[in-house]
Amino acid sequence: MHVQILIYDGFDELDAIGPYEILSGAGFRTELATLAPVGRITASHGAVLVPHATLAERPDLLVVPGGGWRTRNPVGTHGEYERGVIPAAIAQRHAAGSTVASVCTGAMLLAKAGILEGRPATTHHAALDDLRAHGADVHPEARVVDDGDVLTCGGVTSGLDLALHLVERHLGPDAARAGARLLEHERRGEVFEARAVR
Amino acid sequence: MHVQILIYDGFDELDAIGPYEILSGAGFRTELATLAPVGRITASHGAVLVPHATLAERPDLLVVPGGGWRTRNPVGTHGEYERGVIPAAIAQRHAAGSTVASVCTGAMLLAKAGILEGRPATTHHAALDDLRAHGADVHPEARVVDDGDVLTCGGVTSGLDLALHLVERHLGPDAARAGARLLEHERRGEVFEARAVR
Repeated sequence: MHVQILIYDGFDELDAIGPYEILSGAGFRTELATLAPVGRITASHGAVLVPHATLAERPDLLVVPGGGWRTRNPVGTHGEYERGVIPAAIAQRHAAGSTVASVCTGAMLLAKAGILEGRPATTHHAALDDLRAHGADVHPEARVVDDGDVLTCGGVTSGLDLALHLVERHLGPDAARAGARLLEHERRGEVFEARAVR
Repeated sequence: MHVQILIYDGFDELDAIGPYEILSGAGFRTELATLAPVGRITASHGAVLVPHATLAERPDLLVVPGGGWRTRNPVGTHGEYERGVIPAAIAQRHAAGSTVASVCTGAMLLAKAGILEGRPATTHHAALDDLRAHGADVHPEARVVDDGDVLTCGGVTSGLDLALHLVERHLGPDAARAGARLLEHERRGEVFEARAVR
């Protein structure tokens, strides 16, 4: 499975690095990818990363972190929401057949992409109303929402539970248990599964 | 407070980035630092980071991540343990007055530095016996061990609880609660406090 985690200036470090470590550790080919070729990306708390790749036409799984939504930071998720270039790229990958998953307020980029309308979803607690305003069927009680080809989760650390859910979905419960144990992470929270897993 | 998180080739991404995000978000001046000047560091799962700084003579807090101990990877914690250059630098900073904290098997670099002998400590479950062999008073029941000027914690995600404990210690419980809430993280596990917090 080819996984790409889309990073952009102002993304939240943990939103991306949590799923990156888990999905990579599970054996998936996992890359931190940018939309356009660029030498470095500076995350919301100041970590500087060198991307591995640019976004493929159709990764099997595209993970979209959030960062900076709550503070309406012009560099980060809110800025990318306003610009619309990343949302359009997400819509293209989804239309091409990629499974798309967001962490935290990355959900707002999926909403802007138009792929959450009428669909069950969640996001960081500070953005639930914004997500509702896009017509998503918001499930604040869930830590992870799995709607088949579109997955979302709550704030920051729920990305760990999203990633372990994806490991379980693709490799089975033993692999997810081993991943959680290696990280000394106790999975928690509800996983709302809207439809049979593909 | 000046915080430096020591990164080196093969460090575990989450060991470092979890505390980085929390300590930086709490308002501490927090840097990802290398021992010698270097352009890039490649972490154990392949993330590539550009360090912010080199290790200061006496940061207020030095955080040491693990990575690759279990597999005896020559690039990573085990390699640095064998080489001994990083352990010597840790010993120097501790002697100069820095508080030193490890995440996961970063504890083995503190052990090699000679600063855990006879002192309460913990590490990733796969390295508890190795830590015991260094004469540390191992507390496997604890997720975080606070021995004043030396702190240790369990595997990978326990770094989140270590960092929130440090926020609580320096800024108080409300700040730690706010940090956990922002990350949608539920603090868990025992904090073994060996002595009155300085």
